Parts: sequence; structure tokens; C-alpha cells
Amino acid sequence: MDWIEGGICAPLGFEAAAAHCGVKTHNTSKRDVMVIRSEVMASAAALFTTNLVQAAPIAVTREHLADGHAQAIVANSGLANACAPCGRAHATTTCEVAADLMGLKPADIIVASTGVIGQELNIGAITAGLPGIVGALERSAEASDAAAHAIMTTDTHPKEVACSIELGGTAVRMGAIAKGSGMIHPNMGTMFCFVTTDAAISPELARAALIEANRVSFGRITVDGDTSTNDTFALMANGMAGNAEISDKGDDYEAFVAALCELCQKVARQMAADGEGAHHLMTCTVSGATDEAAAETLAKSVVGSTLTKAAIYGCDANWGRVLCALGYSGARFDPERVSVSFASAAGTIDVCRDGCGLVFDEALARTILEEPEVRIEVCVGDGEGEATCWGCDITHEYISINGDYRS
Amino acid sequence: MDWIEGGICAPLGFEAAAAHCGVKTHNTSKRDVMVIRSEVMASAAALFTTNLVQAAPIAVTREHLADGHAQAIVANSGLANACAPCGRAHATTTCEVAADLMGLKPADIIVASTGVIGQELNIGAITAGLPGIVGALERSAEASDAAAHAIMTTDTHPKEVACSIELGGTAVRMGAIAKGSGMIHPNMGTMFCFVTTDAAISPELARAALIEANRVSFGRITVDGDTSTNDTFALMANGMAGNAEISDKGDDYEAFVAALCELCQKVARQMAADGEGAHHLMTCTVSGATDEAAAETLAKSVVGSTLTKAAIYGCDANWGRVLCALGYSGARFDPERVSVSFASAAGTIDVCRDGCGLVFDEALARTILEEPEVRIEVCVGDGEGEATCWGCDITHEYISINGDYRS
Repeated sequence: MDWIEGGICAPLGFEAAAAHCGVKTHNTSKRDVMVIRSEVMASAAALFTTNLVQAAPIAVTREHLADGHAQAIVANSGLANACAPCGRAHATTTCEVAADLMGLKPADIIVASTGVIGQELNIGAITAGLPGIVGALERSAEASDAAAHAIMTTDTHPKEVACSIELGGTAVRMGAIAKGSGMIHPNMGTMFCFVTTDAAISPELARAALIEANRVSFGRITVDGDTSTNDTFALMANGMAGNAEISDKGDDYEAFVAALCELCQKVARQMAADGEGAHHLMTCTVSGATDEAAAETLAKSVVGSTLTKAAIYGCDANWGRVLCALGYSGARFDPERVSVSFASAAGTIDVCRDGCGLVFDEALARTILEEPEVRIEVCVGDGEGEATCWGCDITHEYISINGDYRS
Repeated sequence: MDWIEGGICAPLGFEAAAAHCGVKTHNTSKRDVMVIRSEVMASAAALFTTNLVQAAPIAVTREHLADGHAQAIVANSGLANACAPCGRAHATTTCEVAADLMGLKPADIIVASTGVIGQELNIGAITAGLPGIVGALERSAEASDAAAHAIMTTDTHPKEVACSIELGGTAVRMGAIAKGSGMIHPNMGTMFCFVTTDAAISPELARAALIEANRVSFGRITVDGDTSTNDTFALMANGMAGNAEISDKGDDYEAFVAALCELCQKVARQMAADGEGAHHLMTCTVSGATDEAAAETLAKSVVGSTLTKAAIYGCDANWGRVLCALGYSGARFDPERVSVSFASAAGTIDVCRDGCGLVFDEALARTILEEPEVRIEVCVGDGEGEATCWGCDITHEYISINGDYRS
């Protein structure tokens, strides 16, 4: 697998464009609507938030993907179109206007919104802006970058990645853009991640691949424990690479899934690292658990612990909080067999063995924890379960950002 | 029921004392060890953290209470005596030394520690300080206050309360001291709450009453979602009021439980209001749920939502985050039937009806949210389930306190 440039426009046959349409009224320089279009009809699948309160675009997209196909994605940032009286009508109108402009059917459009919950979407801004965006669609790295910017809310930088692999001797490409930042505690869905690929794959297997990739990437990150109402993780596979269509779970499927997992983990790490106000990417690997599910439960509890996050912010090797988080995770283990180390580019330091504290060099520990990526390595016994989860520290900036987000 | 003065020394036959012994090495003016002694043997019960990682004093106290009796409590702050190699030996030594000084058996001592996890308890400081503390035991409001101070960690003020009720024509008293502040997400236990009463009640019913009171008080607060390794909620009932011993679940038991619940709810509110760095006490009442358990799940999700807590800190009526937290709570409800209001001493404002936002006066909303106690009132339908949970906002001070707690 090779990492390549071009984001969502790296795969053949995908174009993108974005503009400021006025959904974000406060900042007229920020792009807030984007479109991704495939030249031909694509196999498509999406996963959504498990929150019981779901934004209107999710219901509309769910219906549109019932046939396993789509040809374009329209998304806005600024307003979530959740808990708003005309939500469904506005999501439908967005699809109708976009479809008309592109010569598609509304049912072939994936629609998504992110931003403030509970305010009416200013649909007029979107419908007025769409002709210009559709007219500007092009296949370029700049277009992918513009689309990545247009879905940002409090993200500090765009998230964009692409790779190429070989399937049966044919080169295929996949690209993704994503947004994360706050209200991140995905559960079977995530914030936004839109994946394009020119691989040929059946809708059923596209969906299976999406579920597997989600499980080991967006399913394993947390910023603040809040699961959003709008999480959408969607994939379009247009087959323009010319590979033999993946229609069973053979070698090509395995290779496709492996690449998709790696692509999504890279995006997930970017999301965690750019969590609202974050100074550190926190990576927790738990090994020696009874099984992978237990390891994931334990690792996610550590990266989700407010107190552990605050300790990492303070570059404080307060491993007692790690043990505490393991203990209340709900997974079983023997507290007297736990070992904990902190690691980063600056080195590794063991701080706990067999459930008891070790004497360690506090200055070295601080140096290790001052790096932007900090790894918390936990071994809970001699089982074979291992999993890695990602999160970020909680900082003064997080409080500032969220103490007055609407204003 | 009447609120009275005197804290844990309000009930007949209870003495207390506290001193700085040196467990807290950084601050020599803070008391860090306290003793509560009953003149006679008492029925006793305790609930503990459900964290799998439990401090050594919990294991020791659990054994000591197997017979349903105790006569004294010894507790320290500063170090948690959790995940420390000699933890059990130190907890046992504490009981032995204290018992010897008071002419009791070690098995009649309840022992508890709170503070930093993973460091060895400096037992020498405790054993050297205990003679002075035991020598100073007295029944006074000042002694109760001293004990309340001695269990504080990052609490900004002591938590102390007492009341009197009549049981079968006889006046009985109960008092409590408690500490909370951080790592507060109790689950069948809490941080420290020590309750004394001169009521006569069997050990079995004392335990039953404790479980019921815990369910509706400490079981319904959260500060940061982190369940501590040391939570201990203990009660001693010495019978010195002279009431007919409560030995069945009749009227006297009901009156006793009702008073204990109210006492503990008052303490729980104090804990939530004094959560680390808190500016606001957040009270969320959910009504109209399918049952009380669903209402509690919903309300606890709201007061536990990091983003809702950040919004309350910012006095921002961002009710979308309330709906979001309801939606991921795990309890079932119809999102299209939810209504939300914010209320405080400054008034009430409706912000959401039938799952959609209302136009409301933002200036009035801000005035309401600027009060120290903010109520979030949620109705999710027309069921009969109702519950109230308490929490606090997350603030810059929380981050500062926990970014460098050990130093």
C-alpha cells in the first residue's frame, strides 16, 4: 500500500468543489458547502451515529442508500440540521436542487450536515450557492482540499488522505476527507468521513468493508465522550479502476478491507490529535486481555477518562488514573497483574508493575509526556486480546471553545 | 425532620478529632487524619466503589464489617493507599494502632484513605499522630468540623450536615461528613461519606437503608465520570437515643430511611456543587420517562455530558447538547416528544418543545444560567418515571487542578 496525494480526487472519476454559501453567517471567509461527484454511478454505503436523536439528513441518506448506490455527496458545516422543524424538508430540497444541477436523481445523493443543533438550516443560502459549486467541480488535489475545508467546524486543520493498492494486478485508489474535533465518541459511525474509491466492489461488500474499517478506527477514538447526532461515514466505489468487481470475501476483498482499515485509522488518529483544544494525541494500547473486545473496552476507558486526559495535558505521569480508568471500564482483569508504561518519541518509562507503583525518574517522565503523541502501554495479563484506541487531552482551550460555542 | 447543628457529633455518644499528621507533606497546615468514635458498639454498614481496582483499606473494612458492627472510623486524606505494595499492611497497622489507643479491637475499626493513587502510605506519620488525635476526641460541633476538614482533598469547603427525627416518639439524630470534588462518578458507593446516628437499628436494616439512600443520592451525582478506587459510604448506629430497635421494615424503618435519603441528598448536592473547579451546580430532572430507572439514565447522561457541562460554564443555553446527551444515554424515548427548559432563581425559560427549538430570549437565558444553581428540566413523554441527578460544570479551574494534581 502506498500513500498518495489528491485526497478524495485521487481515485479516477471523482470531482469535488466547495464554497462559502452563508450557512456560517459569522465568518464569510470559511467554505461551508461541498459537493463530491462520481463520473459514473457508484456502489455506496454509510454508517451513522447510534444516537437516538438523529439529524434529518441521516434519515434522508438512509433512504437514498437503500439500493446500495449513489453518485454524489452534498455536505454543509455550520448548522447540524438536527432538532429543527423543517429539517427533513431542507435535507430533501438540498438533494433535489443538487441532483437537478448535476443531472442526477435525488435518490442518488448522500446529504450530510454538521454544526449547531436545533437551529433551522438557512436552506436559501445552500440552494443559491449550489450552482456555483457544481459549476466548479473538478478532479484535483486543490478541489479535494477545498472540500475537506468546507466540512470543518472547530477543526484546526483539514483531514485528508489517499492511498493506492493493487487488486488482482490492477492499481486502485482510495481517498478520504473527514472532520472531527468535538462531540466525538463515535459508536458505529463517526463524525464525517467520506471515502471515494475507483475500485469495483458490490454494494453489500462495500458495506461490510465499511463496518469492519469503522470498528478498528472511528469506533476506537474519543474526544469528549459525547456521541454526536450527525455522525456520517460514507463510501462511494465507482469501479473506474477496472479491477474485477469484488463480489465475494476472497483475497481482493481482504486486501481492500486492509487498505480501508489503514486509511481510516490514519484519519481517526488525525481526528483524535485535532480534538477540540488538544495538545496531545493519546494512544492507548492494551495487551494481554482475555480477548480483543476486552482490550478495546479497557483502552477506550483510558483514553476517555477525563482525569487521565487532564494528567496528560499537565505532562504528569499520574498512572494511578490509568489504573482507575481500567478498573471502572467494565472489562474483567486482575488488578494485581497490570503493568503500565508511558512512551513517546522521547523514550519509554515503566511506571507500574503488577498493580503497584515503581520508582521512576519524574523528569524523564515529563520529557516523554511533553511530546505531541503520547502512548500509554498497558498489559493486563497473559491473554491474547490486544487493541489500540485513540483520544486527546482535555485542555483550557477545550473549555474555552465549548463554553461559548454558539456565539 | 429538622436540620440541626453538630455534624457527626450531633448524635449522642459520638466523638471526633483530627490533626495534621504529615500524610500531606506539601501543606503542614491541613489536617489529614481524623477519628470518629462511638461510646458504645454500633450497628455498622458500608458501601464501596464498584471499581475493580480497590484501595487496600476497602478490603480491610469489608472484613471488619462482616459481623455488622463497628465502634470507630479512622480516615486519612493525601494518599489513597491504592496500588501500593504495602497497602494492606498499612491499613491493618492503622486499625491496630488506633484500636490499641482506644481500647477497642482492630476488627471494630472502619478505615479509609483518599488522595493520590499508587504511592506508599507514610504509615509512620499516621501512627505517630494517632495518640494525639485519640487523646483529643470530644463531642462538639468543632470536632465534627475538624473531622470534615481532615478528609478534604481538592474540596474547597467541608461537607457536614445533621438532622433529627422522631422514631416512635423518641428523638433520634443523624449526622454526616463527606468529601467529594474529583474522580466523582459513584456507582453503588461514593467518595467518603461517614454517617453517625444514635438510632437503634439492626445491622441488616442499617445496610438496607444505606443501599436505598445511596441509590437516590450519591448514585445520582457525577463530576467527571471517573469512578474512584476509594469510595466509601459508611454508617454507624449506636442506639444511644433509646428508641425501640428497628428490626423490621415497618414505619420506623421507613421514617429512618426517608431521613437518611434526605440527609444524603443534601450531602450529594454539596458534593456536586463543590466539584473540582465548579462554578455551577447542575440539577437535571427528567420526567415522563417509562420508569424511574430510565429517567435516572437520561438525567445522569445530561449532567455527565462534557459538552453540556461546558455550555453551562459558558452560561450558554445550548439545549442541543442536552438532546444529544439524552439521545446517547441508552434509555429509550421518542425524540419528537422531548421538551427542555432551563431554570434557576432568576426564572424559567422554555427552549425546546416536541424535539424542536423554540425562539427564546437569549439575554434572559443567560441571566438564568448565571445563577450558581441551574436546573435543566426535561420531559420526554407521558410516562410516570421521574428522577433528579446532580452534577457541575467543567471549567478552566478543573483543568488547572487536574493538569497538575500530584505536584
